[in-house]
Amino acid sequence: MIRVAVIGGSGYTGGELLRLLAVHPKVEVTYVTSREYAGKPISLVHPNLRGFYSMNFSQFSWDRIGDKADTVFLALPHKVSLEYVPKLLEMGLQVVDLSADFRLKDPEKYKLWYGYEHPYPDLLKKSVYGIPELHYEELKGAKLIASPGCNATATILAAAPLVSSGLLDIYKLVSDVKVSSSEGGAKPTEGSHHPERQNAIRPYDADGHRHAAEAEQELSILAKREVKVSLIPHAVSSVRGAFASVHGWLSTSVPELEFWKKVVDFYKNRKFIRIIRGNIHPYPDTKYVIGSNYADVGFAIEERINRITMFSAIDNLMKGAAGQAVQAFNISQGFDETEGLKLPPLRPA
Amino acid sequence: MIRVAVIGGSGYTGGELLRLLAVHPKVEVTYVTSREYAGKPISLVHPNLRGFYSMNFSQFSWDRIGDKADTVFLALPHKVSLEYVPKLLEMGLQVVDLSADFRLKDPEKYKLWYGYEHPYPDLLKKSVYGIPELHYEELKGAKLIASPGCNATATILAAAPLVSSGLLDIYKLVSDVKVSSSEGGAKPTEGSHHPERQNAIRPYDADGHRHAAEAEQELSILAKREVKVSLIPHAVSSVRGAFASVHGWLSTSVPELEFWKKVVDFYKNRKFIRIIRGNIHPYPDTKYVIGSNYADVGFAIEERINRITMFSAIDNLMKGAAGQAVQAFNISQGFDETEGLKLPPLRPA
Amino acid sequence: MIRVAVIGGSGYTGGELLRLLAVHPKVEVTYVTSREYAGKPISLVHPNLRGFYSMNFSQFSWDRIGDKADTVFLALPHKVSLEYVPKLLEMGLQVVDLSADFRLKDPEKYKLWYGYEHPYPDLLKKSVYGIPELHYEELKGAKLIASPGCNATATILAAAPLVSSGLLDIYKLVSDVKVSSSEGGAKPTEGSHHPERQNAIRPYDADGHRHAAEAEQELSILAKREVKVSLIPHAVSSVRGAFASVHGWLSTSVPELEFWKKVVDFYKNRKFIRIIRGNIHPYPDTKYVIGSNYADVGFAIEERINRITMFSAIDNLMKGAAGQAVQAFNISQGFDETEGLKLPPLRPA
Amino acid sequence: MIRVAVIGGSGYTGGELLRLLAVHPKVEVTYVTSREYAGKPISLVHPNLRGFYSMNFSQFSWDRIGDKADTVFLALPHKVSLEYVPKLLEMGLQVVDLSADFRLKDPEKYKLWYGYEHPYPDLLKKSVYGIPELHYEELKGAKLIASPGCNATATILAAAPLVSSGLLDIYKLVSDVKVSSSEGGAKPTEGSHHPERQNAIRPYDADGHRHAAEAEQELSILAKREVKVSLIPHAVSSVRGAFASVHGWLSTSVPELEFWKKVVDFYKNRKFIRIIRGNIHPYPDTKYVIGSNYADVGFAIEERINRITMFSAIDNLMKGAAGQAVQAFNISQGFDETEGLKLPPLRPA
Repeated sequence: MIRVAVIGGSGYTGGELLRLLAVHPKVEVTYVTSREYAGKPISLVHPNLRGFYSMNFSQFSWDRIGDKADTVFLALPHKVSLEYVPKLLEMGLQVVDLSADFRLKDPEKYKLWYGYEHPYPDLLKKSVYGIPELHYEELKGAKLIASPGCNATATILAAAPLVSSGLLDIYKLVSDVKVSSSEGGAKPTEGSHHPERQNAIRPYDADGHRHAAEAEQELSILAKREVKVSLIPHAVSSVRGAFASVHGWLSTSVPELEFWKKVVDFYKNRKFIRIIRGNIHPYPDTKYVIGSNYADVGFAIEERINRITMFSAIDNLMKGAAGQAVQAFNISQGFDETEGLKLPPLRPA
Repeated sequence: MIRVAVIGGSGYTGGELLRLLAVHPKVEVTYVTSREYAGKPISLVHPNLRGFYSMNFSQFSWDRIGDKADTVFLALPHKVSLEYVPKLLEMGLQVVDLSADFRLKDPEKYKLWYGYEHPYPDLLKKSVYGIPELHYEELKGAKLIASPGCNATATILAAAPLVSSGLLDIYKLVSDVKVSSSEGGAKPTEGSHHPERQNAIRPYDADGHRHAAEAEQELSILAKREVKVSLIPHAVSSVRGAFASVHGWLSTSVPELEFWKKVVDFYKNRKFIRIIRGNIHPYPDTKYVIGSNYADVGFAIEERINRITMFSAIDNLMKGAAGQAVQAFNISQGFDETEGLKLPPLRPA
Repeated sequence: MIRVAVIGGSGYTGGELLRLLAVHPKVEVTYVTSREYAGKPISLVHPNLRGFYSMNFSQFSWDRIGDKADTVFLALPHKVSLEYVPKLLEMGLQVVDLSADFRLKDPEKYKLWYGYEHPYPDLLKKSVYGIPELHYEELKGAKLIASPGCNATATILAAAPLVSSGLLDIYKLVSDVKVSSSEGGAKPTEGSHHPERQNAIRPYDADGHRHAAEAEQELSILAKREVKVSLIPHAVSSVRGAFASVHGWLSTSVPELEFWKKVVDFYKNRKFIRIIRGNIHPYPDTKYVIGSNYADVGFAIEERINRITMFSAIDNLMKGAAGQAVQAFNISQGFDETEGLKLPPLRPA
Repeated sequence: MIRVAVIGGSGYTGGELLRLLAVHPKVEVTYVTSREYAGKPISLVHPNLRGFYSMNFSQFSWDRIGDKADTVFLALPHKVSLEYVPKLLEMGLQVVDLSADFRLKDPEKYKLWYGYEHPYPDLLKKSVYGIPELHYEELKGAKLIASPGCNATATILAAAPLVSSGLLDIYKLVSDVKVSSSEGGAKPTEGSHHPERQNAIRPYDADGHRHAAEAEQELSILAKREVKVSLIPHAVSSVRGAFASVHGWLSTSVPELEFWKKVVDFYKNRKFIRIIRGNIHPYPDTKYVIGSNYADVGFAIEERINRITMFSAIDNLMKGAAGQAVQAFNISQGFDETEGLKLPPLRPA
């Protein structure tokens, strides 16, 4: 059994990690911290977990973490992970960081997108970007996993087969993402107030969401050339689920079947990718992945004008956050990547 | 491994059974039938199950069922189960019937509530009403399990500690149930059309829903006297979840803490009952059981006028249908009752 | 043109008043105050009203209110209205108060339900409880209108024909109310956070909601005896709409048609009451009143056990708050009661 | 008073027309037809309209229409309007057609997008495409108004200032539209079944929705060159509201303020266009137009890569259908264009 700590366990991502790890057959959760709720029962914050954890949240302690854990999951805000990761690694612990702090390889990008000078450029080289479908081999034995953002995951998994195909006319993509309210985290805001959020259809960060940085990094590797990605999220009414529609222009007319084969090839043997095509349900739908770690991927081509759109549907807290982190952790430990994640999606939900 | 057949696998209850049984460690699903979809892939109807079943729906065949299955789950409309149950039992198969056809002990009640003369009164005596919290011992080794209705389950689990307490003034209860749209099944109707159903708050069957018959039967056993239950369901906006508010009048002033102890006692050692009380989340909420087999139970007393309301929140497809059926099946087979059901609820969902 | 001020214009009730008064043919809105938003444009807080108001919110000023307004609508929290009402009346202004501060006739009830000694018992005698269907004549020329609470309105309009009928067995009623999120007001809370509120079905104030005080007052008048009401609200997923199911026991078997006539008689000539009965839509539904001032009223009788449930569906911000206040204001001014309220409900919404 | 007939009054567009026309001060509704519901009360199909229409639906009759109406609104399926329009015009009646049958000027486009040979190419020349913001002058006195599609309206109103600006790099636009369930009409389908539709995020007609034909026609006129539009609708959870995000690439870096002025100029004096910009609500949101005829328009520029997205939010049944039809009708009759449409949007809704 791997002894696991969750640092920052009171948010939605922390709660989802706790939900998955509670029934993971190779893991024992030994330590869960929260600044705000230290001393209080986990089930007070996460009423769904009543009966699964008898422990309370702890205040984080450097003295105890080493005794308590082999692996540390960090579900912390951006920039806060920086305070933990280097020392945890020095202590010999494995780190799965769900913040953005170690996702980008190029330290310059932190200035550009996050507005700060990255203090550990060497660690950026060592961290593995945790999309297993792209970095499976690197994840084996990884000591620092930088788990991707939800909108980035949706965008990258949709666009990867397309940018790899060599069929794009221009290497600028628009990822129009539709996101559910749980993406915004557990803190109430004016915009998350139910009467204001329910039935909304509105963009945010529309002059360029910073998950684009991750998408450009990963898609440029696959394309073997620079790819520009414009990522525009839109708030819609659901609670769980993110959907990316990545729009591009093909350089030539491509029959659907031919492109279909490229997508199937690209994702061959990837256990959490399902490629969607058919008559009744021709495209992915967030409804059919909720509660699971699947990414459903599909596409449409408008032959008249050579427009292609790649689609992906994920559960933003699963494949977009905690589920993908556990998947990457599984691979890093030599477990089957589906360990603790063998759940079919709920339907209807 | 128990070989299991699901008869009527294309509806929501059938789909939920298939979802649970796909990852049940002691079960192999060998046969799934559907009149309408025979010959078509299971994942066509249940896109969430892509990757979990490679088989197609079959047309039911008496010649094959005996070779294929040890246990048969029937997810069929009311009155249709009657055509299957006696012969399946004769063939020596175990039957878990999710219809209403074998739930009521008194054949007269079928005339009153369902409008037909029950053809197998003897089987009514043999069937076990499948709420494990009330019939645990009887379920062991049971050959015919009559799995309860969702509104009945919610009502009975809420009201059971109350009617057992001997504290009621009058033994007439009103169960005001709030139900999600998946309760209505997978067939589109005018009332289930999204623009008509979303944001609705409206009662139906308000002159007396027939799940009251089950509730009266079970609660009268517990009360050791006749209990009358009026069950009025109301459609609200969610997709999953049923909530019962069972209103009654106490014969005397009862302090909250005293009643609380009675509820705790009543449900001692029941693994899928969670009793809710506290400051932040004082009452059950369907949100915290979704995707799980839990029934969260609670209550409120208005001392001023001795009114008591018992509450229960369930996932109508889980504890209200497929989950409870699997739980009862587990007990009947001597498995731990949580086998295949060890899932914490989703949150947020 | 009546010059109207809205004091406390930044909440949902204030916003709804502004929406209605903006197009009311006999009203000019001259003064809108908000402590928090003084100096800021009305449309900043109420983006729906872009183009309807060019004015900013003001800080309330006793020096200006007299010059600015003939009638003052108070959309203030409970207890805050107390600071305004007496002096406004002294200044000769008409007051329509949407708080609870002048709804109850008996000052003792303020101690019991609201926990304070009412400082103006004389004004309680003078105020008119603003349900026009019950107090039409008193509203004519009224200088102080106490506009009712939404849950009270729903409960009273449902129960009024029942308690007046003389057919109840016991004069204790349970009003099980289902409420939308806008009832909670415009301030974000943990419970109103979209991921926590959407898909919820949960009671609150379940040991007795204080709108019961209003309901008991009004229904006792109608019954000509003491009526006890237990009011239990339940949060459900929608944004607008409140639905009351008022459960009682009849003293005798009453045919539906007979009771139907009593309801029709009771609400004869009431322009904003619609009595619902029929095959396709047999009961009220919040969906069919949204955006309007209608209360749809209906009922169901379970003859088997003489249970009756009276139903009402209202838009909580309209007939439950701002719409009803405008209706009462119209009557007080001698206008047609439908002035500025002639809007059919939206469908679908 | 103009005597108005609504042909095809039982669907959502017909119902919305009836809702608006019931309180339109210059209109009398004299005739409402429905094949399916002839002889039945209007309020049976549209329960929101109880109390507004005492008449029944009629079977359409050529003998009666001439006596009954001056203006005929056709809320009929595509291709069915063809059977009515020429003869109604011959009879001297004004026609406002809400189908697609007279929207496209080039008969070839009907072959391409709708698969039929248009039988009345001459009438295509005479019809006026009913977006008043683009065709105000032509609408005056128009005898045949072709009222636009909802997705086309959203796309065109968003993109019009952009294509007119001369700032586009390539004249191919992607309109990623998010649509509510009422767009699909009043007939239940598998996809509109509440449990399947609620919480969905899924594209449809993703290889090219045919409203693109209208958008290309109108935007090419404005751009004075050929504009290609790819229109991809996505079903999201709400009941009302359509949101278009029209993505394009600018030929040069354009400061936000400069572009802002162009948009303001473009829509100068247009009463139903509101241009959105600011800190708290920087972009349009369907929430703030529901129940009204407004189109809220905005944009975002990602300067880093010269990507621009134009946004529009409309109520699909109002500005996207019935409201816009009434607006165009008002202009055609010489009325103020806001007649019968002076309603602020609901909030929250």
